[in-house]
Amino acid sequence: MKETVNLAVIGAGRIGRLHASHLAHRIAGARLVALADVRRQAAEQCAADLGVSKVFQDYRKVLDDPEVQAVVICSSTDTHARIISEAASAGKQIFCEKPIAQDLRQIDDALESVAEAGVKLQIGFNRRFDPNFRRIWELIREGKIGEPHLLRITSRDPAPPPMEYLRVSGGIFLDMMIHDFDMARYIVGQEVQELYAAGGVRIDPEIGKAGDVDTAVVTLKFSGGCFGTIDNSRKAVYGYDQRLEVFGSKGMADTENNTPNRARLITEEGFREDLPLYFFMERYTESYLNEMNAFIRCIRENADPLVTGADARAPVVMGKAAGLSLEQNRPVALSEVS
Amino acid sequence: MKETVNLAVIGAGRIGRLHASHLAHRIAGARLVALADVRRQAAEQCAADLGVSKVFQDYRKVLDDPEVQAVVICSSTDTHARIISEAASAGKQIFCEKPIAQDLRQIDDALESVAEAGVKLQIGFNRRFDPNFRRIWELIREGKIGEPHLLRITSRDPAPPPMEYLRVSGGIFLDMMIHDFDMARYIVGQEVQELYAAGGVRIDPEIGKAGDVDTAVVTLKFSGGCFGTIDNSRKAVYGYDQRLEVFGSKGMADTENNTPNRARLITEEGFREDLPLYFFMERYTESYLNEMNAFIRCIRENADPLVTGADARAPVVMGKAAGLSLEQNRPVALSEVS
Amino acid sequence: MKETVNLAVIGAGRIGRLHASHLAHRIAGARLVALADVRRQAAEQCAADLGVSKVFQDYRKVLDDPEVQAVVICSSTDTHARIISEAASAGKQIFCEKPIAQDLRQIDDALESVAEAGVKLQIGFNRRFDPNFRRIWELIREGKIGEPHLLRITSRDPAPPPMEYLRVSGGIFLDMMIHDFDMARYIVGQEVQELYAAGGVRIDPEIGKAGDVDTAVVTLKFSGGCFGTIDNSRKAVYGYDQRLEVFGSKGMADTENNTPNRARLITEEGFREDLPLYFFMERYTESYLNEMNAFIRCIRENADPLVTGADARAPVVMGKAAGLSLEQNRPVALSEVS
Amino acid sequence: MKETVNLAVIGAGRIGRLHASHLAHRIAGARLVALADVRRQAAEQCAADLGVSKVFQDYRKVLDDPEVQAVVICSSTDTHARIISEAASAGKQIFCEKPIAQDLRQIDDALESVAEAGVKLQIGFNRRFDPNFRRIWELIREGKIGEPHLLRITSRDPAPPPMEYLRVSGGIFLDMMIHDFDMARYIVGQEVQELYAAGGVRIDPEIGKAGDVDTAVVTLKFSGGCFGTIDNSRKAVYGYDQRLEVFGSKGMADTENNTPNRARLITEEGFREDLPLYFFMERYTESYLNEMNAFIRCIRENADPLVTGADARAPVVMGKAAGLSLEQNRPVALSEVS
Repeated sequence: MKETVNLAVIGAGRIGRLHASHLAHRIAGARLVALADVRRQAAEQCAADLGVSKVFQDYRKVLDDPEVQAVVICSSTDTHARIISEAASAGKQIFCEKPIAQDLRQIDDALESVAEAGVKLQIGFNRRFDPNFRRIWELIREGKIGEPHLLRITSRDPAPPPMEYLRVSGGIFLDMMIHDFDMARYIVGQEVQELYAAGGVRIDPEIGKAGDVDTAVVTLKFSGGCFGTIDNSRKAVYGYDQRLEVFGSKGMADTENNTPNRARLITEEGFREDLPLYFFMERYTESYLNEMNAFIRCIRENADPLVTGADARAPVVMGKAAGLSLEQNRPVALSEVS
Repeated sequence: MKETVNLAVIGAGRIGRLHASHLAHRIAGARLVALADVRRQAAEQCAADLGVSKVFQDYRKVLDDPEVQAVVICSSTDTHARIISEAASAGKQIFCEKPIAQDLRQIDDALESVAEAGVKLQIGFNRRFDPNFRRIWELIREGKIGEPHLLRITSRDPAPPPMEYLRVSGGIFLDMMIHDFDMARYIVGQEVQELYAAGGVRIDPEIGKAGDVDTAVVTLKFSGGCFGTIDNSRKAVYGYDQRLEVFGSKGMADTENNTPNRARLITEEGFREDLPLYFFMERYTESYLNEMNAFIRCIRENADPLVTGADARAPVVMGKAAGLSLEQNRPVALSEVS
Repeated sequence: MKETVNLAVIGAGRIGRLHASHLAHRIAGARLVALADVRRQAAEQCAADLGVSKVFQDYRKVLDDPEVQAVVICSSTDTHARIISEAASAGKQIFCEKPIAQDLRQIDDALESVAEAGVKLQIGFNRRFDPNFRRIWELIREGKIGEPHLLRITSRDPAPPPMEYLRVSGGIFLDMMIHDFDMARYIVGQEVQELYAAGGVRIDPEIGKAGDVDTAVVTLKFSGGCFGTIDNSRKAVYGYDQRLEVFGSKGMADTENNTPNRARLITEEGFREDLPLYFFMERYTESYLNEMNAFIRCIRENADPLVTGADARAPVVMGKAAGLSLEQNRPVALSEVS
Repeated sequence: MKETVNLAVIGAGRIGRLHASHLAHRIAGARLVALADVRRQAAEQCAADLGVSKVFQDYRKVLDDPEVQAVVICSSTDTHARIISEAASAGKQIFCEKPIAQDLRQIDDALESVAEAGVKLQIGFNRRFDPNFRRIWELIREGKIGEPHLLRITSRDPAPPPMEYLRVSGGIFLDMMIHDFDMARYIVGQEVQELYAAGGVRIDPEIGKAGDVDTAVVTLKFSGGCFGTIDNSRKAVYGYDQRLEVFGSKGMADTENNTPNRARLITEEGFREDLPLYFFMERYTESYLNEMNAFIRCIRENADPLVTGADARAPVVMGKAAGLSLEQNRPVALSEVS
């Protein structure tokens, strides 16, 4: 095991502050040495809270700092590809929030820089590190369900994001289902070759006016012969709904939604349990910690990242194929868009 | 409430004997007065077991018998349409096992005879009478989940039928998924307008050689804007798997698979529960009794059957559309095949 | 396998009619040939419903009838011991509803008659034949939980019986917990040596005025070193509550309460499942069928009954010990009362 | 809201380090300023890890330090009462791990010092802050189950502690069941008046030789008419088992054991879920954070502690009564020992 890794977090928004606080206190082998944010005050406030001395407005100062070995990129999505390239050139190890970009060319350029520089790049598909999904992954890897034949992912948000966000989000497939596309590849361990998307506006007509849908079902055909379905809704009134099922030649593995407690009440009106945890910050807390631990471990042990640049690219291709499929109401091969 | 209904069962195979034994002893208001089967011995054995005095080889004798008010048709599928027409002409009330026929023209002819004769016709889609699915249906009708947005049906058999059966079965969509097509319409309460089928051979290459698939996923688009998926497998090693989920604007309702008991064991190796009930005869016992009670009730109270001739036709149209969709790898509108 | 067994049911009240209808139609190898009830009309109505030709007011006519091989005694409790003795003398095989009597001397006399006559006697502790409890029993017999260390039985009725019944019932321990005393011995497979009872009036002061309690907790010490607790309430507003847990050196087995379906609803107000099955006639349907099948099988195969006369006696001893323990607020050894 | 609270942790063993790390990083409004441990190195190591500058071998240095407003006492049990008294005299707010002492006189002396000094004292009964048990508590307080009639607590450890610990532990009632005694009072909201204990040696004869039992069942009679049972085992092979059920006039609330994930596997061998979380450090993680947050809040808002000195005393009285009950095999009123 090598010595402590010195890191900087770029971007002090919600997710940046979360990673920063984990790195400051809860990740063994990590030391948070710098913070950067274009909104200087945000960076300064966060640094003060966490006892970090170096604060920058310009992320390039971070890249120039020889003390910084690794960067955690949490800035706005449109800056990810550029910062990855520059950080790679500066020889930094890189953790970057998803997606790298919505444009495949930009992704490819960033990945090329990383390859040339020979640095590590881990992508923030945190759900892979959720104890439920991770356990399903293990069961499959242990051969417990045999060859996977059918996959089903349910992924529903408690409420749509604000319209201003939604309009620039890239649409439901690139903004929301992209997580499920990643999960599908991760769990099944096969590439998707073709998909078919159906969907419509069931929640809010404003979403339709913005050219998007809020309810969608996608059928996946995997390279190894597995079939899958993903369903998304922008609004589950009962809260965040994140479930998964894999059926195979030797059995089936699935996972229930998480709930805040295991208490049950039974009265004249029936059995009752509490609602699931509200949204991703409540539901996936442990996964954020786990993914950062994995990143630090891969630096210290000089191992391969568990979520690679190729893992960043594939779900974007799937999202684009899904958009095309919905538009043309036909199955679309991924080779058409990649 | 009118007096007791006198019935005859036509066909003394597995399902015919089941209905006969229910009618003989367990359905209030029903009296089993006759049995018919081309295999005369089968009819006689069943009659002896149940204390029924009239036994015929030729079902026409049943239709000629003025004591018989209603017939329960359990003969082989290719005879259903013809017997329905003749029974209608003879003025009998009719319960017929599914499907009426795989040919739409034959179905239409039979339904026309029924309409002309003004008799009742109930189709044996027994799963509608299963306490689990019926409860979901009620919850939806009570408005508990609001407008349905997403439907998911999982339906997996414990093992494929013999190849000789499979070859003449009409294929997975008309033989197996037809139940789920009926369930989809029943639960959501909307008609399906278009569907897309994906599938392949994952269980047994022989099934592929017979021109069929053993694993399939179908996406449904409903008239009211709901989307659905159905997945089928011919072989779930853990037993019969029958589950359903409906997600709507106000909530979600789903149902777990039935198991033979509620016992749990927890040891050093983990929690453990028993496997689900093995196959449809174990799983749907109660539904067979319920559907026959409903048939007797609709005769005695002169009410409309709960599963109509139109309900018999629609799933066959869906099965044909699914076959075409799989063949041509494109979404198919039901209007193309009906 | 011997030929069909001809039976008579004595007592055409609720439970008598249930057994009669099972014997008439649903038990292979059994034939119901006669019915008797002091209320002649009740017997005649039941006989008409089930197509039984012999009807008697006086049960002695049944005992004199050489066609009758076995009797099912469902008359009022105060007649059980006498009818058992007379039926044994008449050489009939005997199934008797629990309890034989509340008086140990009467029980012993009846059991002596049975032993002298060499006939079979099975007692109607039907819960032993419930699929849930039976499964726990099997798991323990298979060694899955190792040596039993702790037993817990929860047994709560949906509502107290009418006061007129309660006043002559023998009290909560002999009327209600007697089932749990039997279950405790059956499941653990050890005899109880000492017990301690606590209880009070929490539901209805009238019950207290009648000298009884409606809420009780009993601690059991078994011969093999296992400890147990039983809790009873006369009123669970959510319905009949029948659960059991056994903890041992290698694991734990428990069983959930039965519910009428496996449907779940989740809305803004939380998860919800339906209430358990209301009371024993709904909850234990299968067990009544199973126990009668077992009785017929033991006659036809000349095997030992699964619930013996000794099994009838032991819970009465426990009930008396519990009453004494509650009265004197001290642990009572069963040897004090047996 | 007042300013930040400066705290010192006394005792840098397992639980002390846990509290220290929470106070250092995860409790808003708290600042860890000092650490003390008789094993100076332990204190120094912990201080280095957490960035705390003041380290002492003698806890009295902490009490003399004017910067320290509150102390968290995690030293060995035999020192608790004395340090509480001295800390109170020094005007510090006090959080103390349970129990204060096993001797009632020492507890009373410590509580008197606290009362005289007018400082706050919160006791570390962390299970009260577990989300499961807390939810049950809330449901009862909201009147959801009406008047409590029956309580059941199951509490089983994964493995007995080392014999050297066990010999000085005070026995199963003061060492292990003491948590359940606290939980019983907390949940039901009534005092226990009398109890009856049964128990034996089922796990390890060495425990018996040490004069203790490893398996025990206690019946509780509460002041308000509720009855309860607690069962304890020193060894549940499947892991830590912590469950609770309360039955009342309007319903029932219970809580399942926590498990590390919600994944299920179903194969030819049955349903399977993972084992529960292993032991208290894994199972009660959240409760330790919650109790410390509550302590800081009660200081900053000048509120009453949620676990008081009286709450520290009552379970010790119950433990002593249980020991006497087991010894003499009779119910013991708490008034006999308090």
